[in-house]
Amino acid sequence: MKNEITRTPFPNSEKIYLNGTLYPRLRVAMRKVEQMPTVTVEEDRQVRTPNRDVYLYDTSGPYSDPEAEIDLKKGLPRLREGFIKNNEDIVQLEEMTSEYGRMRYGDKGLDALRFEHIAPPYVAVKGKQISQLYYAKLGIITPEMEYVAIRENMNCEELGIETHITPEFVRREVAEGRAVIPANINHPEAEPMIIGRNFLVKINTNIGNSATSSGIEEEVEKAVWSCRWGGDTLMDLSTGANIHETREWIIRNCPVPVGTVPIYQALEKVNGKVEELTWEIYRDTLVEQCEQGVDYFTIHAGIRFKNVRLAKNRVTGIVSRGGSIMSKWCLTHNSESFLYEHFDDICDVLAQYDVAVSLGDGLRPGSIHDANDEAQFAELDTLGELVERAWAKNVQAFIEGPGHVPMHKIRENMERQIKACHDAPFYTLGPLVTDIAPGYDHITSAIGAAQIGWLGTAMLCYVTPKEHLGLPDREDVRTGVITYKIAAHAADLAKGHPGAQVRDDALSKARYEFRWKDQFNLSLDPERALEYFKAGHHEDGEYCTMCGPNFCAMKLSRDLKDCMK
Amino acid sequence: MKNEITRTPFPNSEKIYLNGTLYPRLRVAMRKVEQMPTVTVEEDRQVRTPNRDVYLYDTSGPYSDPEAEIDLKKGLPRLREGFIKNNEDIVQLEEMTSEYGRMRYGDKGLDALRFEHIAPPYVAVKGKQISQLYYAKLGIITPEMEYVAIRENMNCEELGIETHITPEFVRREVAEGRAVIPANINHPEAEPMIIGRNFLVKINTNIGNSATSSGIEEEVEKAVWSCRWGGDTLMDLSTGANIHETREWIIRNCPVPVGTVPIYQALEKVNGKVEELTWEIYRDTLVEQCEQGVDYFTIHAGIRFKNVRLAKNRVTGIVSRGGSIMSKWCLTHNSESFLYEHFDDICDVLAQYDVAVSLGDGLRPGSIHDANDEAQFAELDTLGELVERAWAKNVQAFIEGPGHVPMHKIRENMERQIKACHDAPFYTLGPLVTDIAPGYDHITSAIGAAQIGWLGTAMLCYVTPKEHLGLPDREDVRTGVITYKIAAHAADLAKGHPGAQVRDDALSKARYEFRWKDQFNLSLDPERALEYFKAGHHEDGEYCTMCGPNFCAMKLSRDLKDCMK
Repeated sequence: MKNEITRTPFPNSEKIYLNGTLYPRLRVAMRKVEQMPTVTVEEDRQVRTPNRDVYLYDTSGPYSDPEAEIDLKKGLPRLREGFIKNNEDIVQLEEMTSEYGRMRYGDKGLDALRFEHIAPPYVAVKGKQISQLYYAKLGIITPEMEYVAIRENMNCEELGIETHITPEFVRREVAEGRAVIPANINHPEAEPMIIGRNFLVKINTNIGNSATSSGIEEEVEKAVWSCRWGGDTLMDLSTGANIHETREWIIRNCPVPVGTVPIYQALEKVNGKVEELTWEIYRDTLVEQCEQGVDYFTIHAGIRFKNVRLAKNRVTGIVSRGGSIMSKWCLTHNSESFLYEHFDDICDVLAQYDVAVSLGDGLRPGSIHDANDEAQFAELDTLGELVERAWAKNVQAFIEGPGHVPMHKIRENMERQIKACHDAPFYTLGPLVTDIAPGYDHITSAIGAAQIGWLGTAMLCYVTPKEHLGLPDREDVRTGVITYKIAAHAADLAKGHPGAQVRDDALSKARYEFRWKDQFNLSLDPERALEYFKAGHHEDGEYCTMCGPNFCAMKLSRDLKDCMK
Repeated sequence: MKNEITRTPFPNSEKIYLNGTLYPRLRVAMRKVEQMPTVTVEEDRQVRTPNRDVYLYDTSGPYSDPEAEIDLKKGLPRLREGFIKNNEDIVQLEEMTSEYGRMRYGDKGLDALRFEHIAPPYVAVKGKQISQLYYAKLGIITPEMEYVAIRENMNCEELGIETHITPEFVRREVAEGRAVIPANINHPEAEPMIIGRNFLVKINTNIGNSATSSGIEEEVEKAVWSCRWGGDTLMDLSTGANIHETREWIIRNCPVPVGTVPIYQALEKVNGKVEELTWEIYRDTLVEQCEQGVDYFTIHAGIRFKNVRLAKNRVTGIVSRGGSIMSKWCLTHNSESFLYEHFDDICDVLAQYDVAVSLGDGLRPGSIHDANDEAQFAELDTLGELVERAWAKNVQAFIEGPGHVPMHKIRENMERQIKACHDAPFYTLGPLVTDIAPGYDHITSAIGAAQIGWLGTAMLCYVTPKEHLGLPDREDVRTGVITYKIAAHAADLAKGHPGAQVRDDALSKARYEFRWKDQFNLSLDPERALEYFKAGHHEDGEYCTMCGPNFCAMKLSRDLKDCMK
């Protein structure tokens, strides 16, 4: 391993693990931040009043726990495997079943690249159902459901905050299709999380190499890095030569659910020739990735032959890669898309592994001009049809959304999605609220993301400063993730998620009391805050360079507090 | 002059000047961006279809015009002086009248620091009224009103876009107090602009040195720099030793209206001792700054003795510097604020120079916890009383707003402000929609700024990444300004400002046609976009590293367009 994996713990933080009640073996990871006491002077005596610990939702996995042993070659601990092994309706195969997977596995030339300890895949016993959706409908609370209920409620018990998020509530949301727990039985390393509008707003980050760039080790560190800053799920959009092997490394070492767009790999298999794509190649790709442990697939089955032409008069045509691939396929073959035609078959594959489907919006608008047009909404209606077909097969499903949308057209997107897609979770890219700021599209899109998150979008796909311009580097990823954590948290506050404001209140109290370090430790990016502070700070006194000693509003205000006693 | 002043013209752009109709001598500056033609292949022949020029609102002043001669020692051309000289109700004094101004002027020791060509101040003839508000009420369209009407309508005439923004519309908006044209007769160098919710959303940037830092030359470049990126007004918040001289340099070289918070300088005059502040010192400071040419003053006259205690139980008390100074004054003297008591006298001073008042929100919330509380809204009601007193004296007025506000509480701020303050323009700091991201507060606040701008806020005060942590450097200022241009433009789109979307459409068309340079030239920050593009781009071909050659959605989509013909 040439590259170092980031393992620095967060400052003044401890990784703690809460046990379940229904499932006492559960260990739900959280980050506990300790604070300094508040120091006041009363009658010439220093009085120290302790400040409570604050619990933070933690997506960083074992990497930020100094106690955890990390060996990329072995992969992360297989947390959920015990539950999976105990499930009589799940069986472990002798070997993988996808043709391509077996071919790669048999290729000795790839040994050097390969993750060593590949486990044979788990699959549902023939004729049995095993998805979270299936169990939820039956009234069964799974370990994953209890895990997310505990995880979503940080600070609530401690502070006596009333919460509606119980394991039973989670079950009901999943049963009704309003929430998804992406949890492929072949990715037991992932810490369960939930995507649904009655839960914390989640963010997805993308990694991937295109044709020329990076290697496998770098890709794993990219995943670790984006989880560290707060990525709730990770989409691997690689298009390079060794996608299969890269993906194995990533999944085995990734503490969050992994998504992919299988059409990308299918297209690689036909050397980029769209017209040569077939259902058989695509199906084998699905099986290959299901058996590796991908937790959800973006599938652009909403592209209908009859709707492609609706994009004709747009300013920016079709900007989704999957959408443009499938549109070209339809037009070349002069026929309906094989993804649409075979959608039930797709669901039959996914159901065996509990892989969720993210219904891609291939006709999403790529500019303010094209927002909310006929093409976009025609596809949304198709997605609404497909989501019901997925549910009928016990496949968990959510819906992808735009794109570029001016603020006054955002609400319509959310309202139509809820209606057309029967309450299935919405997963949007931004939206960008203006086109005029290349280089700053993390910001143009965070403005839209915060709004649509507040209105009910369950997961936000992050955008980095390099959007439209090039591939993000490490710092771009960090900036993109933090920007989206801001949008998601702002939405959580606006929606009144139980416990969300605890962090704001604690940080602001620390700020007001000049407990600089507590302020930074509670912030989304403690390192960045400290770095900026150090750049401007002359001494560790009670003011910063912003106002100077005579003008510090907060110091004056604290003096006032004494006057008002 | 040790520091270089930034004079680089914008790429592929020309500074143009439009003449007025009512006032043919007006020269309204705009930036014209030329585009490449669209190249298509039809029947094996290259066809080149020209793309229209795009006109952009331009705050950069003469600095970005290579034809303009710039000499900081002489100051910018005094654009409006002809109109001022022709006004019989305005007289030029022999010398400045403020005691402090005269003292500084007489101090030979300051000669080296001093702007050389200080002109004696203009003032209204005794008993006469000269403000934009006064003329508007009388039904008179001033040159400034025609100037802003032309400026607000870029692209409209050219593209046949219908616009309601006529000089008469401007006059009516000013007459009714819904809009302000900050235009001190002693700042004839400034290009007129308008602040009101039926116009483009404006942004303010802050500069200033605190106790120890920078010198005069640097301060001028800071002003030029922030105007370059799009600052519509500039607040000079300096608190250093030579405020008076620094301000002169800035005003003489600043192409946009300048605002200040006079209490800061008044406090300097009593060596930071709040209790020693008096009406007399404050009044002399107002006169001093009016005669220098400050276009608007933030005045925290809304702090009432009876309301200070309402902030007692807040998490972050009083976070406005002016607010905490005045609160301390009230509590120390156990009496009503002298700003409130003397508000009519203040207006009498301001009216003589047409200086606008920005009614400061001294009790704005400094945390999510404190948003929309009793203290904040009690002050807002006082501001509503004061705005009517200002109007009665023909003083243009607008209202400052928060601060830290979660998204679901933003609308209430706007609606209460419009009602309590009788439609006077709102000028907000952000608001920040969460407290948890120090180091990224340009983003937390842009999310709130875009929303409140859409709802009707007329001007947004920018926030830089260093907010809460230290003083912004040059790159922070650029980032803050661009971030706020995004928020303001997003609001313009959502409000349907005539002509706003022209820029988005042109840029997106260029993007789709791989006219990379046009895309960058039309963007808010052409340099940043080009820099990111270069970092990721292998050749000047038709794809970037984001997708690679086989996966470029836009290339595929363009191919499709051919299929669909």
